[in-house]
Amino acid sequence: MTASHAAPLPADIATLADYERHAAAHIDPATWAHIAQGTTHANRAAFGRWGLLPRPLAPIAQGSTARVLLGQRHDTPLLLAPVAYHRLVHPAGEIATAQAAAAMGATLVASTLSSVTLEDIAAATRAAAQELGLPVPPQWFQLYCQPDPDQTLALVRRAEDAGYGVLVVTVDAAIKRADFALPPGIVAANLVDPAVAAPAPHRAEAQAGPLVFGSALARQAPTWDTIAQLRQATSLPLVVKGLLHPDDARAAREAGAEGIVVSNHAGRVLDGVAPALPCLPAVRAAVGPNYPVLFDGGVRSGADALKAMALGADAVMVGLPQLHALAVGGVAGVAHMLHILRTEFALAMAQCGCTDAGRIGPGLVMPMIGG
Amino acid sequence: MTASHAAPLPADIATLADYERHAAAHIDPATWAHIAQGTTHANRAAFGRWGLLPRPLAPIAQGSTARVLLGQRHDTPLLLAPVAYHRLVHPAGEIATAQAAAAMGATLVASTLSSVTLEDIAAATRAAAQELGLPVPPQWFQLYCQPDPDQTLALVRRAEDAGYGVLVVTVDAAIKRADFALPPGIVAANLVDPAVAAPAPHRAEAQAGPLVFGSALARQAPTWDTIAQLRQATSLPLVVKGLLHPDDARAAREAGAEGIVVSNHAGRVLDGVAPALPCLPAVRAAVGPNYPVLFDGGVRSGADALKAMALGADAVMVGLPQLHALAVGGVAGVAHMLHILRTEFALAMAQCGCTDAGRIGPGLVMPMIGG
Amino acid sequence: MTASHAAPLPADIATLADYERHAAAHIDPATWAHIAQGTTHANRAAFGRWGLLPRPLAPIAQGSTARVLLGQRHDTPLLLAPVAYHRLVHPAGEIATAQAAAAMGATLVASTLSSVTLEDIAAATRAAAQELGLPVPPQWFQLYCQPDPDQTLALVRRAEDAGYGVLVVTVDAAIKRADFALPPGIVAANLVDPAVAAPAPHRAEAQAGPLVFGSALARQAPTWDTIAQLRQATSLPLVVKGLLHPDDARAAREAGAEGIVVSNHAGRVLDGVAPALPCLPAVRAAVGPNYPVLFDGGVRSGADALKAMALGADAVMVGLPQLHALAVGGVAGVAHMLHILRTEFALAMAQCGCTDAGRIGPGLVMPMIGG
Amino acid sequence: MTASHAAPLPADIATLADYERHAAAHIDPATWAHIAQGTTHANRAAFGRWGLLPRPLAPIAQGSTARVLLGQRHDTPLLLAPVAYHRLVHPAGEIATAQAAAAMGATLVASTLSSVTLEDIAAATRAAAQELGLPVPPQWFQLYCQPDPDQTLALVRRAEDAGYGVLVVTVDAAIKRADFALPPGIVAANLVDPAVAAPAPHRAEAQAGPLVFGSALARQAPTWDTIAQLRQATSLPLVVKGLLHPDDARAAREAGAEGIVVSNHAGRVLDGVAPALPCLPAVRAAVGPNYPVLFDGGVRSGADALKAMALGADAVMVGLPQLHALAVGGVAGVAHMLHILRTEFALAMAQCGCTDAGRIGPGLVMPMIGG
Repeated sequence: MTASHAAPLPADIATLADYERHAAAHIDPATWAHIAQGTTHANRAAFGRWGLLPRPLAPIAQGSTARVLLGQRHDTPLLLAPVAYHRLVHPAGEIATAQAAAAMGATLVASTLSSVTLEDIAAATRAAAQELGLPVPPQWFQLYCQPDPDQTLALVRRAEDAGYGVLVVTVDAAIKRADFALPPGIVAANLVDPAVAAPAPHRAEAQAGPLVFGSALARQAPTWDTIAQLRQATSLPLVVKGLLHPDDARAAREAGAEGIVVSNHAGRVLDGVAPALPCLPAVRAAVGPNYPVLFDGGVRSGADALKAMALGADAVMVGLPQLHALAVGGVAGVAHMLHILRTEFALAMAQCGCTDAGRIGPGLVMPMIGG
Repeated sequence: MTASHAAPLPADIATLADYERHAAAHIDPATWAHIAQGTTHANRAAFGRWGLLPRPLAPIAQGSTARVLLGQRHDTPLLLAPVAYHRLVHPAGEIATAQAAAAMGATLVASTLSSVTLEDIAAATRAAAQELGLPVPPQWFQLYCQPDPDQTLALVRRAEDAGYGVLVVTVDAAIKRADFALPPGIVAANLVDPAVAAPAPHRAEAQAGPLVFGSALARQAPTWDTIAQLRQATSLPLVVKGLLHPDDARAAREAGAEGIVVSNHAGRVLDGVAPALPCLPAVRAAVGPNYPVLFDGGVRSGADALKAMALGADAVMVGLPQLHALAVGGVAGVAHMLHILRTEFALAMAQCGCTDAGRIGPGLVMPMIGG
Repeated sequence: MTASHAAPLPADIATLADYERHAAAHIDPATWAHIAQGTTHANRAAFGRWGLLPRPLAPIAQGSTARVLLGQRHDTPLLLAPVAYHRLVHPAGEIATAQAAAAMGATLVASTLSSVTLEDIAAATRAAAQELGLPVPPQWFQLYCQPDPDQTLALVRRAEDAGYGVLVVTVDAAIKRADFALPPGIVAANLVDPAVAAPAPHRAEAQAGPLVFGSALARQAPTWDTIAQLRQATSLPLVVKGLLHPDDARAAREAGAEGIVVSNHAGRVLDGVAPALPCLPAVRAAVGPNYPVLFDGGVRSGADALKAMALGADAVMVGLPQLHALAVGGVAGVAHMLHILRTEFALAMAQCGCTDAGRIGPGLVMPMIGG
Repeated sequence: MTASHAAPLPADIATLADYERHAAAHIDPATWAHIAQGTTHANRAAFGRWGLLPRPLAPIAQGSTARVLLGQRHDTPLLLAPVAYHRLVHPAGEIATAQAAAAMGATLVASTLSSVTLEDIAAATRAAAQELGLPVPPQWFQLYCQPDPDQTLALVRRAEDAGYGVLVVTVDAAIKRADFALPPGIVAANLVDPAVAAPAPHRAEAQAGPLVFGSALARQAPTWDTIAQLRQATSLPLVVKGLLHPDDARAAREAGAEGIVVSNHAGRVLDGVAPALPCLPAVRAAVGPNYPVLFDGGVRSGADALKAMALGADAVMVGLPQLHALAVGGVAGVAHMLHILRTEFALAMAQCGCTDAGRIGPGLVMPMIGG
């Protein structure tokens, strides 16, 4: 693992919010605007509606943040969410993120829309762990179903061959329109036509054509059948990402998926969408205590992660903070960000008297009146 | 249909809010102040109290935004609300709005207080549709009851003769005081005395005279009898616009009206008025599932429209965004605004797993605690 | 009635808030700071938690804002609350306010702490009404119990002799500390020692002496016995002003008071006090439908007044707007302010389908979720 | 008692907020930043969700703010919370605070992390009371359990020998990481190694080592056994400070503690922690009416104190205002701050009709909808 930059990290970074604050100066303005958009305000505000209840004198000498998910042990229930095109903010792109994740024992969920190939990401993860004498963390691959099912299957085979152990199928962005032009030199490295994110069609053109229903976009959108077919096509565990409704959580289980990720795609796909966090209790109630439910939706601290788990999640994903930390500090930045997050999480667990990440439950939080 | 201006639309417009932002620079300050006033804040804030619940894997290959209202098919359940005096913001006035609506297959509800005649609006609608080879969208006329019932009937006859298929009787502005002086050259083109919107009486004079009750204003205000008489006077379907209370919704049905529009007149008529959106569920419950209920009250996106329909509306109207888009881009602006709105609406429907605009219901939204 | 100033009113005043905005430029800064202080924010915010429900087609040709209170007819249920020292903002002081109130048929509740004598206020009221050929509106006097009961009784006798018909006993400011020094020339004209509002004691001195309980202030504070004694001492109806708790409302009735004013003294007396408006329903429930309950607490529009009455009040008082309008426009300002208020009130009544101020009830308002 | 400064207090200080406003100019910026940090916003906001209900005509001629806590009489139920290192803001440090507290008859809870020794604080308290001819107020000592139990016991013995009558064991900061470097000359005067607050470890180093569980920090954290052992080791009453959960309140009683302090350590220890005030009712319900419960969490006025007591506390502590007042005015500042607070408290009691601080209950407050 080669340090991808030499500059020291800024001295005043103590939280993930500090990375976000610094990141604006390290990222091209157009890219920054694209990253910063999205109505995540409702996602973030939802965390303020629950308060953690510390239990100061509980015995905490021994304990563990580890969590088994889909048969694999995770040092912490904190995963790096799939985020597209890391090279937008750092030349080493997902390679640097993967090295940092391996160094911290965390799982990077590699995106279909990565700017380096999924094979290179997997290899970089293993090499970094080996160089540091650490076990390789579980490797997960995020799958966007492609317009051509053969291309989807080809991605699945490549992921299997590259050693990924879990497939995360993102289902909530199927009919989002492209709205961001990749700068020169950044490509969707995994795809047949890597320039997938073309500029948006000219407005005048946009006025022609069918109105969503009947369009190619809608015809190609994955359905529950797609999930069932994928379930048949691979022996890897499948996790469906992008559900909020308890009926969909139940349907995922019935379609054979091994787990789900409650997520509203950072509020970027559907204007006016419900925040993700308050959806957790009903989802957990729908699938029962033992079905794997992950959460993705505005987590920015260990306390946020603990609240999401208290409300029903088995683990959480963090998305944009990866790019913030990568832009600011490359490998060291992402590693430090993960360290902050997992330390905050362990401290919050300990302060709430939890010594086992598998036993986090609703008693840890208090709903806030008028919060 | 002649393009009413040559300048291209601003490149950075992607939402109705963008049109509002741009519009200030295209509209005379006094007119802008008049348009922008009104306590619409509560109307807008109400939308934040419900979140949409997407259903990502529902089958959406086929579907339709179309909706039958009062026996007429609408491509989308999105109508242009009656708005007075379009020539305040663009020389072509309602002619341009009508051409854009026809091009987009949308219904313009022509206002009694239009700045071109209702006959010219109807003709422009048909001509534009014919030029584009499109069906003529349903044509609706909004009626303000006049002090003299014969004048009211005359307007009804003119609307019938001009080919309008629905009469929308606005009942919630009867005792609003005039507070805006029309600039030179803008008139109420449909009325006998077109300079209807005279300056407000001088303050000193205002202190004399009866206090609302017993005034000419109050004596001339329409009542349920007025609706019943109108119901007898024309064979056109009647829609009563401006109701919030479930008892009034029921009364409208009993008076023979074919439908209602839940609206608080953008909050401009009664200070401290309840926001319109939260009134929908009780109104729907009062009139049952099959009585036509439209909504007008702060819709600014397809997601807003979908929320209003989830809470009980069969269709929605958008008001001020017409003027914003007309000011910024004339015919092209209004057409583009409608395109944005209907595309957002279709995308929101599809993302919520709805393939039939007739089956939108309360399961699509989640109330937000403290939202 | 002589116009007390010649300057015309500002042209841009259409609401009571406009008077407040203008007033700052007409009032001495120290006085303005004193007037503007007080935690009225909670009082004002409470109005936003209820929305009015208009009933557009109700018959409103005839109707009345009049209300009988304690056997006297009021043209509108809108009274001028007792406010101290009107001469702080205008040389004519309460004389001007009284003339404007008489011209508008409104009752001024003359304050014990008026800057002209109660006799002069009463005479000015009658003279103004006579000059205008109008009936004299009901005249009310507000009583602060004095340290010496004989002085209190002397005030009662003077009020009786001057023709006042109702005594409003303010009971919620008994142990407020003086915190404002009257400027030269302004006195408490009704009191034996007119320089009642002396500067606050020096801070160092304040540290000595008993802590409220046992102090002269606490020993002299009126109690329910004081009310019962007052009840015996005069034949005038007694209204107790400054109650929020339903038990106190009941106690007032039992002590023989003819009515109460729900008020928190604009939040100026007790830090952290509950807002007044939400206290109304419980108070009304405690005393039943027929006991006179007035309201004072942040009313700034006719809609506010209507909400307070829908929640249980029989009438409302407006306080500070008197000073704002008096400072800006003298007699004409106060008259105009009253005209705005009563017109807004009548319009709001009419729009809500009320034609009788005696039949305003809870069906007029909708509680606002998260409002 | 020697005046520790000669400058007069600023003339415009009337509330504790005024002291905070002035303090910034009197405190070293790094220290100010350290003091001002912490998420106390939620603690403060919670007070806005309850409103006090005054009872104006209740008899208040006689009454008392006094409260017996753990067998000792306190003039008011208002204590100075343990706050570390007073010399950070004033050269006389805790000596000045103790003199002011003695002059006002208030209890200073001396901190383990005081910048002068606990013996000197106790002596200064007694000397000041003697010089003024006042009784010595109850003396309390706050204990942080030390890594070495013998050191903890040594602190207990010193507190006993110095005459402290109550031990307050703070249990909610055990695993907070050091994050503030003491400036030269300021030390933890009570500790064996007085430079206890060393700079935070370098970030790179921080990435090594165990993740909270299994660390020295976690192994040394006090547990319920620690409380039980302390209970055996001293005859002084024990009060456990830093509980929010009703189960922990019950556990404290069962472990033999004589009382508790509901506190979230100003929100500085656990990100996302519940505000302290709303935890009071459940805690009081858990321990019954007679178990001593104190409150610490954002009290900044007498009204705040009264609200906390209405919600279940027997007494309250104020923390940071000590430092603000000490920085601004030394002994006189702290005394004046205490005078403001106790006067506000007595006035609020009196206005709410309470004449006995032992009978403050839930009827004094109204929950505020949407507050």
